[in-house]
Amino acid sequence: MDAKTSILDIQTVAKTRINEVDFDNLQFGKQYADHMMYCDFIDGEWQQPKIVPYGPMTFQPSAKVFHYGQAVFEGMKAFKDDDDQVWLFRPEENFKRINLSSQRMAIPEFPKDYFFESLNTLLELDKDWVKKGKGNSLYIRPFAIATEAGVSASEANEYRFMIITCPAQAYYNKPVKVVFAQEYSRAADGGVGFAKAAGNYGAQFYPTKLAKEKGLDQIIWTDASSHEYLEEAGTMNIFFRIGNQLLTAPTNDRILDGVTRKSIIQLAKDEGVEVIVDRVSVKQIVEAAKSGELKEIFGAGTAATVVRVEGFEHDGVYHDLPEVEQPYATHFKNKLQDIQYNRADDAHQWRYKV
Amino acid sequence: MDAKTSILDIQTVAKTRINEVDFDNLQFGKQYADHMMYCDFIDGEWQQPKIVPYGPMTFQPSAKVFHYGQAVFEGMKAFKDDDDQVWLFRPEENFKRINLSSQRMAIPEFPKDYFFESLNTLLELDKDWVKKGKGNSLYIRPFAIATEAGVSASEANEYRFMIITCPAQAYYNKPVKVVFAQEYSRAADGGVGFAKAAGNYGAQFYPTKLAKEKGLDQIIWTDASSHEYLEEAGTMNIFFRIGNQLLTAPTNDRILDGVTRKSIIQLAKDEGVEVIVDRVSVKQIVEAAKSGELKEIFGAGTAATVVRVEGFEHDGVYHDLPEVEQPYATHFKNKLQDIQYNRADDAHQWRYKV
Ligand SMILES: Cc1ncc(COP(=O)(O)O)c(C=O)c1O
Ligand SMILES: Cc1ncc(COP(=O)(O)O)c(C=O)c1O
Repeated sequence: MDAKTSILDIQTVAKTRINEVDFDNLQFGKQYADHMMYCDFIDGEWQQPKIVPYGPMTFQPSAKVFHYGQAVFEGMKAFKDDDDQVWLFRPEENFKRINLSSQRMAIPEFPKDYFFESLNTLLELDKDWVKKGKGNSLYIRPFAIATEAGVSASEANEYRFMIITCPAQAYYNKPVKVVFAQEYSRAADGGVGFAKAAGNYGAQFYPTKLAKEKGLDQIIWTDASSHEYLEEAGTMNIFFRIGNQLLTAPTNDRILDGVTRKSIIQLAKDEGVEVIVDRVSVKQIVEAAKSGELKEIFGAGTAATVVRVEGFEHDGVYHDLPEVEQPYATHFKNKLQDIQYNRADDAHQWRYKV
Repeated sequence: MDAKTSILDIQTVAKTRINEVDFDNLQFGKQYADHMMYCDFIDGEWQQPKIVPYGPMTFQPSAKVFHYGQAVFEGMKAFKDDDDQVWLFRPEENFKRINLSSQRMAIPEFPKDYFFESLNTLLELDKDWVKKGKGNSLYIRPFAIATEAGVSASEANEYRFMIITCPAQAYYNKPVKVVFAQEYSRAADGGVGFAKAAGNYGAQFYPTKLAKEKGLDQIIWTDASSHEYLEEAGTMNIFFRIGNQLLTAPTNDRILDGVTRKSIIQLAKDEGVEVIVDRVSVKQIVEAAKSGELKEIFGAGTAATVVRVEGFEHDGVYHDLPEVEQPYATHFKNKLQDIQYNRADDAHQWRYKV
C-alpha cells in the first residue's frame, strides 16, 4: 500500500475468492468482494478503520441496532472504463448524505478522510471485482449501526461503520408496473423519510408485498396526510414526462435527495429540456394519462440508474403508458452511463478517479 | 426439564453468573440473565427453539436487519411474589402484539407454543434472577430480526427470533418534564407507528436529544399532519386527568396499543372513574392547564409502569402541573403492581403463573 492509505490498518486475504464467482450469473447482493472496512466508534471517537477479509462478525444480542433500528446506509457504484481505470460517481454526495442521515438518527458523523481512504483502498485491493462493460459495476454499501449492548431506548455510545461491496451485473431493466399509494405511507412530516435510515426500508416490505400479490412491482409513495401528491418510490425518485416537460417532486423531509435525480435534472436543463420541480398531484397525472399527454414515468436511483414505468394503478384502475419514440428514460440513462463509464465529457466534474 | 419443555433444545450454563451481579446497583439493560432463547426461520419454517447460555452471536455484515431495519420487539416483565412464585402480566397481549408487529414488517409470525414454552423454560432456569420486592422484576425482551445475508431491498427469507432477559431494579420514578412535539414526529398515517418496529425508536433519539438539551426529559408526540392532537410518548401511552376525568387518545395506526394503557383504562372503569378515550387536543390541555382544571398527566408503559409528568412545554412556554393529593398516577400504579406481585385479587385474570 502506498503512503496515502497509512491511516488504515490493512489485513489482506491470503487468497482471493474471485474465481468462485460466476460473473455472468450474479444475484444482486449475494456475493461480496474479498475485503471490507469496519471502524468502531468507542469512547467518543472513531477508532482506526480496518480493512479485513470479508466475513461474519460477532455482536451482542442486546446491540441497539437489533432493537431500535439505529442504523443508516448509502448505496454507490464503482465503474471500470475501457482502460481499466475505476471511477466513482459523485461520491462526495453520498458522503454528505450518510452524515446527514446519521445526524437525524443520532449517530456520530464519520470523518471524511476515513471515508475516502477506505473507498480508495477497497477499490484498489478489489479492483478485479469491478468488471468492464456498460451496466457492470461494483455496488458499494457503506453503513453505520449502533453496536452498544443494552436495551434501554436511547442513542448508543458505540457504533460500527462498515463498507462492503458486491459485484452487480448489467441486466436488462424490465419496465415496472407501479401503484400509487392510497392506504400505506412511507414517511411522516417531521420524520426520517429524507434519511437513508434502515427502518424506512423494512417498513415498505409489507405494502410492497401486497402490491406484488396484485401483479404490480413497486409502490409510488404519496404524501401521508392526503395521498394527493406523488413523492418517490422505495429506492428511486420519480420523474413524469408530460408533453416534453419533465416533472419531479421537490425534496423535503419525507423524500430522499437522490444523486441520480439531481444529475438527471442537471442533464435535462443542460439540454434545454424544461424541468418542473414542484408538487406532482395524482389528479394531474391521471388526467394527463387519460388525455394522452403523459408520455413517460421513470424511476431514478443508483441501483437501477433509470427504470421505465409501463403503467400505474390508481383507485383500482390500471393506466397503460405509451411506448414513445426516443424516450427520455433511455436518453438520460445513456447520458449518465456515458459519464459514469468515462465515455463522455464530464462537464460537471461528477467522475471521481479512484 | 419436565416434559412440557420437550419442544426446546436446551443447553444450560456450566456455572451461573448471578454472583457477579450487584442487584442493588443495576443499570437497566446492562446485565443479562444466564440463558437466552433463539430460534431461526430457515426454508420457510421456524426451526427448533434453542435455549443457550447468554452470549454474543455471529452475523453476516450484509444481514438485512443492519440495512433495512426489518426487526420488531416486545417488552414484558416477570414478577416474584412473597412465596417465590414467578408471574407474568398479560403475556398473551405481548404475544399477539409481536405477531401484529411482525406482520406489518413482513416477518413471519412466531408460533404460540414456542413463545410460551420458551418463556416458561427461561423463567424456570433463571428464576433466581427475578428478585422479590415491589418494583423489582426481570425485564423480558423478545425480538425478531432479519438475518438473511443480502443487500437487496426486499423482505428476508431468514430470521432469528430471540428472547433475552435482564434484571430491573425498583427505582424511584422521578417525575418527568415533557414537551409537546411541534416540529418532529414519530409516525405517519399508514405507517408503522402501531408496531413495535425497531426503526420507530431509533428515529426518536435525535429529537429527544434536542429536548434533553433544553432540560426536558421526553417528547409527547402529536399527529404528524397538524401537531394538534396528543398521541403518546416514546415508550409510554399518555393519560390526562381533567377534574376527575381520565383522558387518553384512542389507538390508531400511529399509536402503540399499550398493555399498561388498556389495563389502567379497565381499572379506572372498574372504580367508576370516567374514562374518555378520544382525541386529546393540545389546545384543550393548554387551556385546562391555565384554568387549573388539568390535575395530572402521566405515562403508562411496561418499563416504568406509571410515570408522573411534572410539567410540559408548548410553544416555548413551560406549564407546571400541580401536585395533587391522591393522584391517579400513584393510585393506579399501586393497583397494577398489587396485581402483578400477586398481592391483590386478579378480577380480570391478568396474571399468568410461570
Ligand atoms: C428512498 C430512496 N429514494 C431515492 C433513491 C435514489 O437515490 P440515489 O440516486 O442517490 O441512489 C434511493 C436510493 O438510494 C432511495 O433509497
Ligand atoms: C411507543 C410505545 N408506546 C407505549 C408503550 C407502552 O406499552 P406497554 O404498556 O404494552 O408496555 C410502549 C412500550 O412498550 C411503546 O414502545
